[in-house]
Amino acid sequence: MAEALETVSRNRCFGGEQRVYRHRSAETGTDMRFAAFLPPQAGEGRRVPVVWFLAGLTCTEENFTVKAGAQRVAADLGLMLIAPDTSPRGESVPDDPQGAYDFGLGAGFYVDATQEPWSKHYRMESYVARELPALVESALPADMGRQGIMGHSMGGHGAITIALRNPGRFAAVSAFAPISSPVNCPWGEKALGGYLGPDRAKWREHDSCALIEGGARVPDLMVDQGTADNFLEAQLKPQLLEAACARAGIPLTLRRQEGYDHSYFFIASFVEDHLRWHAERLRRAPHP
Amino acid sequence: MAEALETVSRNRCFGGEQRVYRHRSAETGTDMRFAAFLPPQAGEGRRVPVVWFLAGLTCTEENFTVKAGAQRVAADLGLMLIAPDTSPRGESVPDDPQGAYDFGLGAGFYVDATQEPWSKHYRMESYVARELPALVESALPADMGRQGIMGHSMGGHGAITIALRNPGRFAAVSAFAPISSPVNCPWGEKALGGYLGPDRAKWREHDSCALIEGGARVPDLMVDQGTADNFLEAQLKPQLLEAACARAGIPLTLRRQEGYDHSYFFIASFVEDHLRWHAERLRRAPHP
Repeated sequence: MAEALETVSRNRCFGGEQRVYRHRSAETGTDMRFAAFLPPQAGEGRRVPVVWFLAGLTCTEENFTVKAGAQRVAADLGLMLIAPDTSPRGESVPDDPQGAYDFGLGAGFYVDATQEPWSKHYRMESYVARELPALVESALPADMGRQGIMGHSMGGHGAITIALRNPGRFAAVSAFAPISSPVNCPWGEKALGGYLGPDRAKWREHDSCALIEGGARVPDLMVDQGTADNFLEAQLKPQLLEAACARAGIPLTLRRQEGYDHSYFFIASFVEDHLRWHAERLRRAPHP
Repeated sequence: MAEALETVSRNRCFGGEQRVYRHRSAETGTDMRFAAFLPPQAGEGRRVPVVWFLAGLTCTEENFTVKAGAQRVAADLGLMLIAPDTSPRGESVPDDPQGAYDFGLGAGFYVDATQEPWSKHYRMESYVARELPALVESALPADMGRQGIMGHSMGGHGAITIALRNPGRFAAVSAFAPISSPVNCPWGEKALGGYLGPDRAKWREHDSCALIEGGARVPDLMVDQGTADNFLEAQLKPQLLEAACARAGIPLTLRRQEGYDHSYFFIASFVEDHLRWHAERLRRAPHP
């Protein structure tokens, strides 16, 4: 691996180590940061399973890392956690012309943009699904034969679509309050229209429900959704994912969590359930 | 209680509720914010024990609330968590003339300033030890007969000194990387000199080691200190607290945690031990 990983921070945490790295990304053409939690079981030749966490709108690699309380569980289960940023950043990177939070910086939507001026830097699918995994495999004690992926909101959309678009790669897939069908909500219409252009057929290649309808599959799926989430009805629409999974025969564990909202307090409350769900599937995954 | 509590935020969290309140403080003459976690055991006439968390330099009520992962344990143990801010804030509040992080805003040091221009607003001891407890008792389902107090760094100093200066109030006292003796470190000399003036005898009334030397007591004490903490030798000096407790016969559980630093990753790693230590003592505390 030619890329140099620069260590931004290292903090001992639950017997393991929370690290933040910076590196030059060939895909985005920018410096990118990501967070990596190494559980105590990693190192000295031992590789551990990896769980990816893709964050939501406005987030960086930091939100999940400092707010979710996931390291305690990951240390217990021997899981590495990788949390990427949500978009390219830097002076050369264009942002939403109105400075809105739901497009541009912090809102890469885990797609490779095809439209100017976004296409040069906004290549978050290739970054998260190809460049960063290769870097993680080369630089960290990660067992890439045992990977899970989860995410929140825009990152829930990212986790499910990347799993559907890379069949067989992820033994476990889950989400907190995912955008279930971006082609059917204002956030998704704005982002996919902006990054991919007006042809809605292109959008469907990055829509969990449309991908499932088109035959893409994951072994099973776990989703938590707060009932007091402000974005539930207009943006998240878990019933669309529920219907798509039901039609396709994908076992979906959809838990409607009474009174929970869209915040990291919601994620923190249930991240242990998700990580245990991932660990169980990663334990059973065939070793490469 | 005449003061009106304004709700800034409410988030469901681990079956309880994380709240942030704003209110007008008579002591500081400013609006103050504090965080309160109500465990699921609270409410409908049931009052629960309270653990106070006093934060360190630069912090607000938010740091512990979003970074420590304490709500999970507090929900399990039925503890209310109260996290105050670390100083008065607002346009009328003077700050360090050089804008340093270790004096003024975010650095109230849990004392009542006697020196101009600080004495008008910087009344954090009276706020934390008198005004806020009365407000909590009147507005929240808190059992004030069962209180514990803990803190980090400057807040560890605050927790221990407030417990020593209010004998019998706190059944449990603990700290993460506390400033053990502010009269013997640069942070303390600057802050106590600024807020209390040049007479070092006044400083000793807010120095854990000097208070213990002068006869003040807590039942016992638990302290975690990371060995990789950048502030360990110049500022924190746990050996001074160790010596003072030994001379006074105060049982001190001082754990030197190998490789841990001064961050909330350190606090998060051990907050469960602290809360269980508090819960055990609060369970035994005589009901008022």
